[in-house]
Amino acid sequence: MSRVLSCLFVTITSISLMSSGLLAQELESIKLNPPDLARGHPFMEALSVKASASEWSDRDLSLQDLSDLMWAANGLNRPDEDKTTASSAMNAHDVDIYVFMKDGVFVYDYRNHELDAVVGGDHRSAVMMRRPPRPETVPEDSGNAVAADAPAAAAPPAEAAIQIVLISDSDRFRAGTNELKYEWGAIGAGIISQNISLFCAATGLKTRPRASMDKEKIKDLLKLKETQYVFLNHPVGYAK
Amino acid sequence: MSRVLSCLFVTITSISLMSSGLLAQELESIKLNPPDLARGHPFMEALSVKASASEWSDRDLSLQDLSDLMWAANGLNRPDEDKTTASSAMNAHDVDIYVFMKDGVFVYDYRNHELDAVVGGDHRSAVMMRRPPRPETVPEDSGNAVAADAPAAAAPPAEAAIQIVLISDSDRFRAGTNELKYEWGAIGAGIISQNISLFCAATGLKTRPRASMDKEKIKDLLKLKETQYVFLNHPVGYAK
Repeated sequence: MSRVLSCLFVTITSISLMSSGLLAQELESIKLNPPDLARGHPFMEALSVKASASEWSDRDLSLQDLSDLMWAANGLNRPDEDKTTASSAMNAHDVDIYVFMKDGVFVYDYRNHELDAVVGGDHRSAVMMRRPPRPETVPEDSGNAVAADAPAAAAPPAEAAIQIVLISDSDRFRAGTNELKYEWGAIGAGIISQNISLFCAATGLKTRPRASMDKEKIKDLLKLKETQYVFLNHPVGYAK
Repeated sequence: MSRVLSCLFVTITSISLMSSGLLAQELESIKLNPPDLARGHPFMEALSVKASASEWSDRDLSLQDLSDLMWAANGLNRPDEDKTTASSAMNAHDVDIYVFMKDGVFVYDYRNHELDAVVGGDHRSAVMMRRPPRPETVPEDSGNAVAADAPAAAAPPAEAAIQIVLISDSDRFRAGTNELKYEWGAIGAGIISQNISLFCAATGLKTRPRASMDKEKIKDLLKLKETQYVFLNHPVGYAK
């Protein structure tokens, strides 16, 4: 009886800790499938259908789609040289790809092509933060914009199965002023963002690049250092 | 006889002015071909062969390759909505694509799909500026890096037929702090940069993203405003 109570206590504690995001050790990492390197529309055709989505199905991504998406974003394409599908200043690999899913938050380990568990729980709402309605005097915004931390930016997206967040750690650059490291981080986030946008265009998935999110909440949740900058997010999912 | 002398005088004056970059009006704009939207490797295959080049043939690009390259970088793919292959914050279209060629410098007009003449003369050396040799204590740099304005960055490239320079005009954002506009400009340059890198990977052209260049010389030459930031360059050419 005491054992049952003890189990119950552990379970309740787990749920409680999970909801406050403390149980990364209970969230299992995800081993990804090898990427399908023959996949996708011809490059110019992918560009011609690239567009920013505003709605998504909430159906989970298949393991193969998730695997190919991560590899496209920043996968090793020349393993012998530690080089990936996205260039970075001084090959510093400063930009980490965080994936917010229903079960928890993961970070992409490009060397082992897996998603490492960071923290349990569904924290997608921090990324999908909605801003107040725009004043009527502001002209209608383009659906293709990188939504910005500004009142006139594009409408926030509805729910999507996953939310990708791009975060640069400027500590990884072995030279440069703080201003330059910030600039290189933003450029690097843009490079990975376009890999994500074009992978989705080439394979029929839906996404859009966004700058709007609750950066302070994300910094707290992921226990980021002062040198880590949160630049962009990408909701990704199937067509609704 | 006087007519011959007059012509000769005009010619000599033109050469002299051309070399000092004053004769934009004598440099003709280039009407580009419609893009070939069926072109290029399947998307994942393009990613798998993406790599940064260090040498190029100096052979001029064909008009079709130049046309497709510009359209891939930031071409109109949804003309009715004024939207292009590269997202920008608030759809501000803040990043201009300057092309430094042997005859002069041009800027891409995405709405009319043409290269508008900016200034005559071969100014590619401002973009291909070489930095002093790296100190021996610095570890060997990766060939995949965005070469940076820092002593330890990647070796500068040899001559290429064209040099693309990405410049954001932060005046075009209708909201945001100066810091945010700078960040959005850098992100936008990264997005266009990856379109260029992947177009080259998909079609067999050679390029690399670089941050190192003579920014002050470029600002003077192009008569840039204080609100215009010079972020990246891409030498582009055929394989040597």
